[in-house]
Amino acid sequence: MKRKSINEMTREELAFEYSELLAEYEQVKAQRLALDMSRGKPSREQLDLSDGILTILENGDDCHNEFGNDMRNYGMPIGVPAARGLFAELCGVGFDNVFLGGNSSLQLMFDTVGRAELFGVYPGATPWCKLEKVKFLCPAPGYDRHFRICETFGIEMITVEMNGNGPDMDTVEKLVSEDESIKGIWCVPKHSNPTGAVYSDETVRRFAALKPAAKDFRIFWDNAYMVHDLYEDEPDILNIFDLTKGTENEDMVYMFTSTSKITYAGSGISAFITSDANMKHALGYIGTQIISYDKLNQFRHAKFFENAGGIREHMKKHAAILRPRFEAVLAAFEKELSGRNIATWTKPLGGYFISLDMLCGSAKRVYGLCLDAGVKLTEAGATYPYGKDPKDANLRIAPSYPPLSELKQAAQVLCLCVKLAAVEKALSAQGFFQSMNSISLGAV
Amino acid sequence: MKRKSINEMTREELAFEYSELLAEYEQVKAQRLALDMSRGKPSREQLDLSDGILTILENGDDCHNEFGNDMRNYGMPIGVPAARGLFAELCGVGFDNVFLGGNSSLQLMFDTVGRAELFGVYPGATPWCKLEKVKFLCPAPGYDRHFRICETFGIEMITVEMNGNGPDMDTVEKLVSEDESIKGIWCVPKHSNPTGAVYSDETVRRFAALKPAAKDFRIFWDNAYMVHDLYEDEPDILNIFDLTKGTENEDMVYMFTSTSKITYAGSGISAFITSDANMKHALGYIGTQIISYDKLNQFRHAKFFENAGGIREHMKKHAAILRPRFEAVLAAFEKELSGRNIATWTKPLGGYFISLDMLCGSAKRVYGLCLDAGVKLTEAGATYPYGKDPKDANLRIAPSYPPLSELKQAAQVLCLCVKLAAVEKALSAQGFFQSMNSISLGAV
Repeated sequence: MKRKSINEMTREELAFEYSELLAEYEQVKAQRLALDMSRGKPSREQLDLSDGILTILENGDDCHNEFGNDMRNYGMPIGVPAARGLFAELCGVGFDNVFLGGNSSLQLMFDTVGRAELFGVYPGATPWCKLEKVKFLCPAPGYDRHFRICETFGIEMITVEMNGNGPDMDTVEKLVSEDESIKGIWCVPKHSNPTGAVYSDETVRRFAALKPAAKDFRIFWDNAYMVHDLYEDEPDILNIFDLTKGTENEDMVYMFTSTSKITYAGSGISAFITSDANMKHALGYIGTQIISYDKLNQFRHAKFFENAGGIREHMKKHAAILRPRFEAVLAAFEKELSGRNIATWTKPLGGYFISLDMLCGSAKRVYGLCLDAGVKLTEAGATYPYGKDPKDANLRIAPSYPPLSELKQAAQVLCLCVKLAAVEKALSAQGFFQSMNSISLGAV
Repeated sequence: MKRKSINEMTREELAFEYSELLAEYEQVKAQRLALDMSRGKPSREQLDLSDGILTILENGDDCHNEFGNDMRNYGMPIGVPAARGLFAELCGVGFDNVFLGGNSSLQLMFDTVGRAELFGVYPGATPWCKLEKVKFLCPAPGYDRHFRICETFGIEMITVEMNGNGPDMDTVEKLVSEDESIKGIWCVPKHSNPTGAVYSDETVRRFAALKPAAKDFRIFWDNAYMVHDLYEDEPDILNIFDLTKGTENEDMVYMFTSTSKITYAGSGISAFITSDANMKHALGYIGTQIISYDKLNQFRHAKFFENAGGIREHMKKHAAILRPRFEAVLAAFEKELSGRNIATWTKPLGGYFISLDMLCGSAKRVYGLCLDAGVKLTEAGATYPYGKDPKDANLRIAPSYPPLSELKQAAQVLCLCVKLAAVEKALSAQGFFQSMNSISLGAV
């Protein structure tokens, strides 16, 4: 039976479906569920994959590298060489271009913006805090924690539309070439948060060839999901450093990555990767800030993985756990939401999220309905600058954390809420609720 | 035989001693030593004391606390509760006043200054970067990395004399009450770096009762050596939070501490301790910067020590290793340098350093002589703001790292260089070198 699109339904059909959905929703509420699809947290099964790392350094001798350096002591401000080499190999960059941080690439990003604000982006550059106005381009839907960094620093955010191949590059090129107050752009080039988009070769090439008006414009290339494929033999994105090296854009890219979703979300290691000149400039300040990040944990990672191949093999185990979760949510969406003209969604090949677009003006309602039914989602609006989705249509779905059985249940509840909100909206447009007792609606 | 003070010696006596010392120095140089007393690094023996921490979490179950929270995952932005409780007990402060960082309290200090620069010290306070001038008081001799933070942020440093009981409080009180541009002071209240001074009760009381002209004046209370006693039954310093609580100075203190010299210098945990209001303000920014610091390492520390008593017991083992090292250097100083009016030095009861004062205008010379003889010291001047010791008289001696035999050798070389520089200086004052071949002097 072909499904009826919501805009083909009569008032009576809508009212009938509404009463059925409402009854179903009340039943779900009565179950007092407590399910969480709000954050991109790895599941326990995934964390267990890395437990070999816990005891890989058993004694003091284990904490020394082949040159006799003791990782338990001070020294090595840029990080443990073996772990720097691991990231250099994985990212296809020079060893000298890799700085190792602690357990948080977010911290490296925040600090990089902080240094730009206080000290400027290159020797002699005006610190951003001395400028009247600083703006960042924010492809959206995007990552709420990127946007929060901008908000915290008082950086004005300009939303750029996110497409399947990356941001709308016509707009990006136009804006950065025209406006000198645009100093940065947030990018998650592979398995983007939350759409799962993988930047096409053309997108990466156009990024590498940008002609920014601001000499201190920087691309914040958050390669959080660089090896986080759900399926084998997925192509890599182009290496932007290969494209900028030797050009006038050689210093335009700051790359960040981490093992937060390779080993432990709470105890991985992170990397800041950039050109020689940027690295030298940054280290002048980082050297005042910290003697070195935690070297034992860097050394544990280097020993655990040995080389980039070790990481790639390890990621196949993550994929085996994540794949059924993604597929379960996508199957529920397909079964419950397709053919009704009430929602579209992305079908990611990796990363941690599915992006769900509903009817305009529905996202907050669906978020609230889910919350009341015991299913926690990332807050509506979070995927847009200032937490304000102009269409109020997008929700970020994080399928990684709940056990598969709970996830299926949560996806069902979500689909129910999407349908309920859509029918409600269609009825509302027809003035249906003006004739109803508003108290009974309030009870929903 | 009573030693002759250098200023009682005749030109002939000096010239004779000079030739003897010079011959001895040339012999030492010929040995091509490579000894290091430059940084406060724990020795391998000390690091080995904590190796039980390496495997204290053996598997995924071990990584859960009693409430089922998984330390390997995201969450707990302020830190692992058990580890926060450990610091709360150790420092005699409220649990809610303890924020846990990564392996570096220096990073917490740098970031705290950074937040003050960018966002101001309390809601509505002017960010320091918007002010014409920001100054810090810097008791000196002091810690070079504190001074480097000020220099990096362009904060003007005002040197305050450091005495045996703490900084010259008359000067501190006068300056902070008169000058609104003075926004901070660096303090190492116990076993101060490098003099080993322990702030007296009166000093701490006077700090707690300061009347700063600047409402956003803050004391940076770097309690790096709070449990780092060399001898048992040493008294603790007064708890400055007990003194400021409920007063108008309740928000005046930022305390920092870490386990860098309790467990591992390269892989400890750190804490930022402050009032409720300061904590709330800071967390607003830290929450944007990082999801949490490395919780596994925090949890390891909590399990390893169990409580403050566990830390205190552990520190006795450090003391047993460090005590002979301090005593060896002090014995060498006593034997070689006393009674000559050429040097004075502190006799610390804890911490990591001995502060050595020589004749004015000698420190750089002694540093250079030592370096040429294969003994690396902290650079002359490092203990003063801008790396400039106005008297060129102070050197920081770090006895912790070298094995005892090497340390004794290094102390001998240092004493030799102090004597050589002193005799050289006395002869120079008598015009001795004007009549000598300057090339032979250059060879020293």
